[in-house]
Amino acid sequence: VRALVYDPVTRRASVRRDVCPPQVHPGEARVRVVRAGICRTDIEILRGYVPFTGTLGHEFVGVVEDAHGRDDLVGARVVGEINVPCGACVSCRAGRGHHCPSRTVMGIVGRDGCIADAVVLPVANLHVVPAPVSDEAAVFAEPVAAAFRIAEQVDLSAVERALVMGDGKLGLLVAMALAPRVGALTLSGRHAHKLAIAARAGIPTVLSGAREPGEFDLVVECTGRPEGLREALGRVRPLGTVVLKSTIAGETTAPLSMGVVNEVTVVGSRCGPFPPALEALASGRIDPRPLIEARYPLDDAEDALAHAARAGALKVLVGA
Amino acid sequence: VRALVYDPVTRRASVRRDVCPPQVHPGEARVRVVRAGICRTDIEILRGYVPFTGTLGHEFVGVVEDAHGRDDLVGARVVGEINVPCGACVSCRAGRGHHCPSRTVMGIVGRDGCIADAVVLPVANLHVVPAPVSDEAAVFAEPVAAAFRIAEQVDLSAVERALVMGDGKLGLLVAMALAPRVGALTLSGRHAHKLAIAARAGIPTVLSGAREPGEFDLVVECTGRPEGLREALGRVRPLGTVVLKSTIAGETTAPLSMGVVNEVTVVGSRCGPFPPALEALASGRIDPRPLIEARYPLDDAEDALAHAARAGALKVLVGA
Repeated sequence: VRALVYDPVTRRASVRRDVCPPQVHPGEARVRVVRAGICRTDIEILRGYVPFTGTLGHEFVGVVEDAHGRDDLVGARVVGEINVPCGACVSCRAGRGHHCPSRTVMGIVGRDGCIADAVVLPVANLHVVPAPVSDEAAVFAEPVAAAFRIAEQVDLSAVERALVMGDGKLGLLVAMALAPRVGALTLSGRHAHKLAIAARAGIPTVLSGAREPGEFDLVVECTGRPEGLREALGRVRPLGTVVLKSTIAGETTAPLSMGVVNEVTVVGSRCGPFPPALEALASGRIDPRPLIEARYPLDDAEDALAHAARAGALKVLVGA
Repeated sequence: VRALVYDPVTRRASVRRDVCPPQVHPGEARVRVVRAGICRTDIEILRGYVPFTGTLGHEFVGVVEDAHGRDDLVGARVVGEINVPCGACVSCRAGRGHHCPSRTVMGIVGRDGCIADAVVLPVANLHVVPAPVSDEAAVFAEPVAAAFRIAEQVDLSAVERALVMGDGKLGLLVAMALAPRVGALTLSGRHAHKLAIAARAGIPTVLSGAREPGEFDLVVECTGRPEGLREALGRVRPLGTVVLKSTIAGETTAPLSMGVVNEVTVVGSRCGPFPPALEALASGRIDPRPLIEARYPLDDAEDALAHAARAGALKVLVGA
């Protein structure tokens, strides 16, 4: 079968046509990939963020071909959670499987990803996609779930004024996910054409550099830039919360004594719950399709990756 | 009267004998200072941490000489909270007076401090010291309160394993304050003679550099070193909490993507509640007197400051 395979020695990814079909072990299912998405994290892997080797990709929608002991799932249209915990360690037994130190992560840590003809995941990781959700919306389930993670970590009902920093894919989805759940939300970014996507969804926007007035109860850092934390600490009110969404290679420098004096809480935030994400996509409360910038067939996945790596690129899809 | 006055132009503090007695405005009290303590923050001010000018010092015990409209307080032995909010702004009306942007802070921001014959504070900032608390223990009320601030910010009942990093004054007091309230607490530091103070109080200690086994639910960073956050992020478990206590001049560099992937919460923590601090001092649950390294008369306050600035110095008291 075909797959977009990353080689950490050359730091290049290339489409191979001779990859063995992924094996299905007990408890697992093989999914024929219909559409995959390229994420900022994939680009960071090419820049050395984690020492990965294998097939890239962790956003997909597909159809179950083979499910060990769960024949009822064959033919179902599914999306999949990316973390595969060991199930036996202290973290897993404490209910923190997403942070299992032995976990694999599809397309990121020790497990092949989904920019391929097929991908294998545990059945427990799969979620059936509701009929109203198109394939091109369903492929956003993983990043939309990551946006909803914030609602599990922060008491949004107490947030009167929120700022989402960064008008990239994640910033736009975070803004769409949080806007109905806080008093008022502003999205700041550097690109008028991306801010326009949020504006059309009814979200107030501001070009960064322009003064965002006042101070915010909650600031979500989605810029993907090392200086994002510094800017976030300058925007949040004393006793407020900064959520860090960007996973970037390298070091961050910030005047943290300001965070101490202002008693700010800084929370790291990663993967999130799929059910509310699929619900928001099914109801149309979140429509991610305006974020799609380009579509490439799997044979041209290298071009798709190069396109997604361009500064300012929005979502690039791969499939069929 | 006498006062230890800091001059930001020369970056030097000197004892002056010709300072006018501080004025008592409505709602305020003048306190004759019996003992004052020197804090790491005082040393940071000399290094440019904040652009302060005036009398240094924010830890004291003293006797009320004059209290505007509260004659009943005259003669009472008191300690004092250091933040003086404006009382009228949005922050103050929201109950966040400690973070009032117009606040003054005794000996730190726009208000004379207590390394002097007398200090003036609002009556509302004063707390009467219970009789069992000696003067030399009472002067620790402010830093012990800062230690108790953590209990207001973190659910300690859920903490099975805690690590306090740093065996300086604040680290020792934080360890003493938290140890009875968490499952198990370890203090790490670089100085065997300081760790011995905690060990005599029944707290397990470890020389840093030695491997502290495992990962901690809560790590409190009290090292005062810029690399402290990096080390704390390496010690805390996924989904755990890091409390930052050090207010240091300059920038901090840390690999925050690790904090994002592990979904760590980082909380800045500053001043705290005096009542539980005075209660712990009165009951003897916290005995800070082993932290006293030296005593200087007010006339020799410059020497006291130089002593406190030595690497590894514990508490230096000034008074009488």
